[in-house]
Amino acid sequence: MQLQTPYYLVDESLMLPALERIRYVETQSGAKSVLALKCFSTWCVFDFMKNYMAGTTSSSLYEARLGHEKFGGENHGYSVAYTEAELKEVVQYCDKVIFNSLSQLDRFYQHARHRSVGLRINPEVGCSHYALSDTVGRYSRLGVRAELLPAQIDKLIDGAMFHMNCENDDVENISAQIDQIESRFAALLPKLSWVSLGGGIAFTSPDYPVDVLCQRLAEFAARFDVQVYLEPGDAAVKNSAELVVSVLDLIENEVPTLIVDAGVETHALDLLVYQFMPKLKAARAVSDAELDELVRQKKPVYRVCGRTCLAGDVFGNYVFEAPVQIGQQLHFQDMAGYTMVKKNYFNGIQMPSIVHKNLQGETRIVQSCSYQQFRDFLS
Amino acid sequence: MQLQTPYYLVDESLMLPALERIRYVETQSGAKSVLALKCFSTWCVFDFMKNYMAGTTSSSLYEARLGHEKFGGENHGYSVAYTEAELKEVVQYCDKVIFNSLSQLDRFYQHARHRSVGLRINPEVGCSHYALSDTVGRYSRLGVRAELLPAQIDKLIDGAMFHMNCENDDVENISAQIDQIESRFAALLPKLSWVSLGGGIAFTSPDYPVDVLCQRLAEFAARFDVQVYLEPGDAAVKNSAELVVSVLDLIENEVPTLIVDAGVETHALDLLVYQFMPKLKAARAVSDAELDELVRQKKPVYRVCGRTCLAGDVFGNYVFEAPVQIGQQLHFQDMAGYTMVKKNYFNGIQMPSIVHKNLQGETRIVQSCSYQQFRDFLS
Repeated sequence: MQLQTPYYLVDESLMLPALERIRYVETQSGAKSVLALKCFSTWCVFDFMKNYMAGTTSSSLYEARLGHEKFGGENHGYSVAYTEAELKEVVQYCDKVIFNSLSQLDRFYQHARHRSVGLRINPEVGCSHYALSDTVGRYSRLGVRAELLPAQIDKLIDGAMFHMNCENDDVENISAQIDQIESRFAALLPKLSWVSLGGGIAFTSPDYPVDVLCQRLAEFAARFDVQVYLEPGDAAVKNSAELVVSVLDLIENEVPTLIVDAGVETHALDLLVYQFMPKLKAARAVSDAELDELVRQKKPVYRVCGRTCLAGDVFGNYVFEAPVQIGQQLHFQDMAGYTMVKKNYFNGIQMPSIVHKNLQGETRIVQSCSYQQFRDFLS
Repeated sequence: MQLQTPYYLVDESLMLPALERIRYVETQSGAKSVLALKCFSTWCVFDFMKNYMAGTTSSSLYEARLGHEKFGGENHGYSVAYTEAELKEVVQYCDKVIFNSLSQLDRFYQHARHRSVGLRINPEVGCSHYALSDTVGRYSRLGVRAELLPAQIDKLIDGAMFHMNCENDDVENISAQIDQIESRFAALLPKLSWVSLGGGIAFTSPDYPVDVLCQRLAEFAARFDVQVYLEPGDAAVKNSAELVVSVLDLIENEVPTLIVDAGVETHALDLLVYQFMPKLKAARAVSDAELDELVRQKKPVYRVCGRTCLAGDVFGNYVFEAPVQIGQQLHFQDMAGYTMVKKNYFNGIQMPSIVHKNLQGETRIVQSCSYQQFRDFLS
């Protein structure tokens, strides 16, 4: 089957390494992982993923319901702020309901008390390379700081959710965070039955010292007799999808420039927001400085750009093995996390299909794009 | 009718000043305006807008078709890069087809020659406050530079499209750009029948010296005997919509913080990408430094934040006339341009409805949000 570009290819065989790592961590440490739907909600592969993960965690009513309907297992319902109506529905889907603030806990506790109630706590330690995703930065509205916790908070909550990392690949750093949490919440932790240490830990990377992490998680769990959870988003779907595009045009303005049939802001928004270059199969990303040098050497190097009208719609600079032709397909890699969940119709450019490839290598198109969808999305 | 938040309120009475300004410019200068759909595609108000504007301009097949079906009038079809199939369909909808590159012009000219064919030209002058939207910056892939234009290009094209401004409110600056275009393209311009000077000119702001602009546009048109077009996007819908939200929670972390039932990345993406604070009705935006000072003075000042999990989901800091209560509605203003066209389902938080208010003051909900839409958008 020749698939028409653009499309996201979600490939179960590419998902396996991260998922097997997740299962390994549960076996070794006892820590269960729930998928962070905010990062990846492409539910065509949930039947596959649920063999490896305990369930899902959500940031809204809709995600909580999606986790319930399509994934099953344990269901952590969190929201920065619920409405009362949402909360009443969320408790139907979730076994754990996690409040972001004391005021939400206070107002809605009565509706949630028949579930396991948790509170998001701001541990005031964490690791993020970006201010935008620094959940423990100044003025953070995400979770309650230690000094604001009422003495009797353990009468209301069974669990605590800490989420303070973003792409943290340093196990010593995580371990030190856990040290801080142990000492700062020493009075509370023994009274809880579960603790989530959140997402943003890059423990599925091949070279991550996973046994060190497992050891630390197991110690933490044993010390306080709590069930530990991790909430991997990106780590759960690392390297598991491609965005496949075609080259529509090749133009020259100082440097050879490819226009492909997708866009950064529309189909991989984090590339724009956090300004990084994605991996591209059979090519190597190069800096602007190196680009100029390679152009001078007449290497097959290109600035690869999207088709929206945005001047900054640039995937990156890449040097290829051979010159690229119009019509050729390019495969952006590691395109599962935070891509499809943020896709949008800016410029009305064609939305990538979603293609599911199972372990047997069978592909099916699970989502196609149409003009009518675009039109009806606008008014 | 009590409308449920969140919703975008598109209000024809608020649209009138900009639209009347657009009509005034056409009357005074002869320059026609076509709506840039990339900025605003909320077609429930197109029947109203078409009384003031000549038509639409697009960045894709879908936008070209939307302009054709919902707006009518003149239809400028532009794309950074067409596929052949798209181009063949675009020519059915558009009276003008504008290519971005010489290679696209060369490949697809045969399909478009029965329409008025244009080429986007990079004038190498322009004004943008942001590198991201600087269409004439280094390596720009948008349009052809003068030195690359073939001598006989006028045998292929009837018109030229220049687009080199973003929120440019300086009429002297525009005038100087036109000077440059006049001299740089002195050989080509007399052979064209139309010239688009693009969008990004803030000529609908109340204090913009619009007669100076009209005079300059009229001179340009007369000198070369061309029909001039403008392509207002944001200028056409300036101050014409609100994003109405409710306060869901009030928390305190050094500063009083409101959580509202919408988000920046999801519903007003440019606030995140370009980092500015929107106007808020009955409140005044304040800087972080002023925020601290006003908190110290115990003024009703708040950090107003969205409900996504993103740490940086912050609309801004505002001082109000009186303390804000949970449940209170807030009205973000000037929320028409580049908001709805980029809305997305990140976090699965509820998508704002779209509410249309006509000149008679009648409101109707033209778009509602549902869980099913969210679910079916993902796979």
